Amino acid sequence: MFDPVEKLKEFIRCPSVSADPKFAAGMRGAQEFVSGLLSSMGFAVEVVKTDLHPIILGHRGGDASWPHVIIYGHYDVQPADPLHLWQSPAFEPTIRGHRMYGRGAADNKGPLLTHLAAVAQLLEQHPALPLRITFLVEGEEEMGSPSFLPFLQRYQQTLQDADFVFLSDTGIPHEQQMVITAGLRGLVTLEVEAIGPTSDLHSGLHGGVLLNPIQALVDLCASLHTPDGRVNIPGFYDDVLEVEPWERAELAKLGGREEDYLKFLGIDAFHTPPGVTPFEAVRFYPTLEFNGIGGGYQGEGGKTVIPSRAFVKISCRLVANQSPEKMKVLLEQTIAARAPRGVQLRIIAGHTGRPYVVVPPGRTNTPPDQSPVLARMFRATDAAVAEVWGKAPLYLREGGSVPIIGEIKRVLGLDSVMMGLFLPQDNLHAPNESFDLEIMKKGIETSRRILLAIAQP
Amino acid sequence: MFDPVEKLKEFIRCPSVSADPKFAAGMRGAQEFVSGLLSSMGFAVEVVKTDLHPIILGHRGGDASWPHVIIYGHYDVQPADPLHLWQSPAFEPTIRGHRMYGRGAADNKGPLLTHLAAVAQLLEQHPALPLRITFLVEGEEEMGSPSFLPFLQRYQQTLQDADFVFLSDTGIPHEQQMVITAGLRGLVTLEVEAIGPTSDLHSGLHGGVLLNPIQALVDLCASLHTPDGRVNIPGFYDDVLEVEPWERAELAKLGGREEDYLKFLGIDAFHTPPGVTPFEAVRFYPTLEFNGIGGGYQGEGGKTVIPSRAFVKISCRLVANQSPEKMKVLLEQTIAARAPRGVQLRIIAGHTGRPYVVVPPGRTNTPPDQSPVLARMFRATDAAVAEVWGKAPLYLREGGSVPIIGEIKRVLGLDSVMMGLFLPQDNLHAPNESFDLEIMKKGIETSRRILLAIAQP
Repeated sequence: MFDPVEKLKEFIRCPSVSADPKFAAGMRGAQEFVSGLLSSMGFAVEVVKTDLHPIILGHRGGDASWPHVIIYGHYDVQPADPLHLWQSPAFEPTIRGHRMYGRGAADNKGPLLTHLAAVAQLLEQHPALPLRITFLVEGEEEMGSPSFLPFLQRYQQTLQDADFVFLSDTGIPHEQQMVITAGLRGLVTLEVEAIGPTSDLHSGLHGGVLLNPIQALVDLCASLHTPDGRVNIPGFYDDVLEVEPWERAELAKLGGREEDYLKFLGIDAFHTPPGVTPFEAVRFYPTLEFNGIGGGYQGEGGKTVIPSRAFVKISCRLVANQSPEKMKVLLEQTIAARAPRGVQLRIIAGHTGRPYVVVPPGRTNTPPDQSPVLARMFRATDAAVAEVWGKAPLYLREGGSVPIIGEIKRVLGLDSVMMGLFLPQDNLHAPNESFDLEIMKKGIETSRRILLAIAQP
Repeated sequence: MFDPVEKLKEFIRCPSVSADPKFAAGMRGAQEFVSGLLSSMGFAVEVVKTDLHPIILGHRGGDASWPHVIIYGHYDVQPADPLHLWQSPAFEPTIRGHRMYGRGAADNKGPLLTHLAAVAQLLEQHPALPLRITFLVEGEEEMGSPSFLPFLQRYQQTLQDADFVFLSDTGIPHEQQMVITAGLRGLVTLEVEAIGPTSDLHSGLHGGVLLNPIQALVDLCASLHTPDGRVNIPGFYDDVLEVEPWERAELAKLGGREEDYLKFLGIDAFHTPPGVTPFEAVRFYPTLEFNGIGGGYQGEGGKTVIPSRAFVKISCRLVANQSPEKMKVLLEQTIAARAPRGVQLRIIAGHTGRPYVVVPPGRTNTPPDQSPVLARMFRATDAAVAEVWGKAPLYLREGGSVPIIGEIKRVLGLDSVMMGLFLPQDNLHAPNESFDLEIMKKGIETSRRILLAIAQP
């Protein structure tokens, strides 16, 4: 059995920044590291070419009656800039205390190695384990996984034979509390450009005769919410389901304090729809946010100009049962219908992501309609977490979006069991990213126990 | 008598960009050019030091009973960038057709030389002309004249002895129509910053719990107008005076076509308050315009962020009888009163400019309350324009602001007679600026006749 800490160092030393072509060698190194490790563990490795970075498949087959789990991870990392803010070099793994520092330590090299180590240990102990395992490790996660959907469609036959997906690419609130992410929000993004006069105009010579494109834009944007904090698009909430009592109960167990959250955000008041707490708002409700706005003069001091154009970037987060395609049409139609005279509104479509939700059978009175193997997986998870962490996991939705999880559900029909391993202090996507090696140790033991229980119910 | 065309070439060859310290030598050259020319014309030259660029005073004294005219101009120019768009070098004067090309040709070197040439010619013909003349030529006009008010206050005693100010730093609609600018709008500028969370936030993890600073900003901005195109600030229109019938009659003579104006602007509809034509809106009514807006992610594609801050730059144009100080307070109070919970609004004061209006006695039934010399000046202007241009001038307000004109009125009590010389095709502040030498010739003759008539009524 390999030493997971030493392997993590080796993995971090491959600077696998997928978004930057300068890191091609690092990407190759990381890909070879994963392939090599899987081979050494006895897996049949298949490196699937894509338009950009290959996807690695590692197969452990077996009898068709055995359960089949796909374990997902990604070998690419975020860029490390700004480099000067790192206390130790981004691609030179360094242990301080019980943390391993380095880009990708937490996202996603540490968590991926957690599962690799668990499987290696398990198979050493039980070489004949009746469990089929497919590692699916992509290299474009930090770029929005552009090759993933075409890959899923191409490999649909092979992959949909699995029973569920198991992964660690989400977080936990603190060292003592395991969280299984039971839902993710979906996404629709777009940009609106307000197009006015042919060129920028002198605001003295022409001010007062025409609708300023910035004014047209702010009027539109202001119309997209009601004063009480709801999204003002007809039909926006139509498909939102009532939140189940078990979800509220689970959230209550998290026990976050609103004052602490306010302090963390650095604001003096929340802004949520009537009757909705901030902890609910971020998990159970859709949003419309302005991600960026620009137009006219933005430099020092002033310039008395009426700009020719202005733009806004909008993203909506969607919750379970909302269709990104339908919401995209709603949004575009509403904006188009609110276009004023004198300024054209041009809508530039962005991308969409499907929301996702899964129901753990142990928390509900009416058992969800899911496969016996998935139900077993949840029971195994509850048991393993209770043993290793000393208390039951929480099943919580998260406000973020991982569009591939929804696509896996849509294309392959498979649910995902997302075991959180990131801590808030891991600094994902930021300088001095690190991974807690104690969490890794507990994660390996948890994963090992879960997989063992699945194989030997 | 000097050759005004040759002198204009010489003047343009001094690259006097006041805003850029790299052009210090050009500024010195232009200043010496003006001082030298005034000396050669027999004027007593005084170069007044300021914090930045000197103000040149050229005095022709005389008996205290003689009329006293201040002729204003500026020797600084706008930056010439982007240089590659110039057909001939910006600071190498080039004649094509009957136009002189070069930065500053029209703004303001040509028009200033027009009056210098008129005076030179006049004094050659009438060496004992009973007229006191003070040339007042500044070097910071293109930077907003920061030294001008302190200068006015320091030289108040000397300058308020004059009867009026005469200048050419405004425009005419076409070669056949002289316009005397009878009014200018005032100005109040400010910036509003909306300050939300301590740092930019992930719009998935936190979207839905807080008021996005962009949303706070667009809500505020959208509240500043009513849908019918009026400014929605209580008291904003309180001090606006009814427009006199003679002004509407004068504007009617201009005879602009709305279709042509729409086409020029490149829009499909005007946006003016109810019952106000675009030609009236730009001259007779105050405005509130957004000059720039910014916040969050503005690059290619999208980034799902909730920004920590967003800002907007606002300017109001004011009309006669509106006080910039009062309007500034109104504006700031209204914005502060509309601050939402959860986002702070920080107001950064900009600058203010006083509106200006003057009434030509020949157009009104009730003679305006003004000095006999000023009244004579208007009659002289009417007569000279009729002779040289073949028809009477129009007295029109302009939508732009020249704050020094209002300050001269406030500090010195002097009115200004603004004889337009720019044509729309002169490309002020843009590449390939030029000045029409035929207009210059007519301008010299008009100015000469006006000044002669003032001296010898």
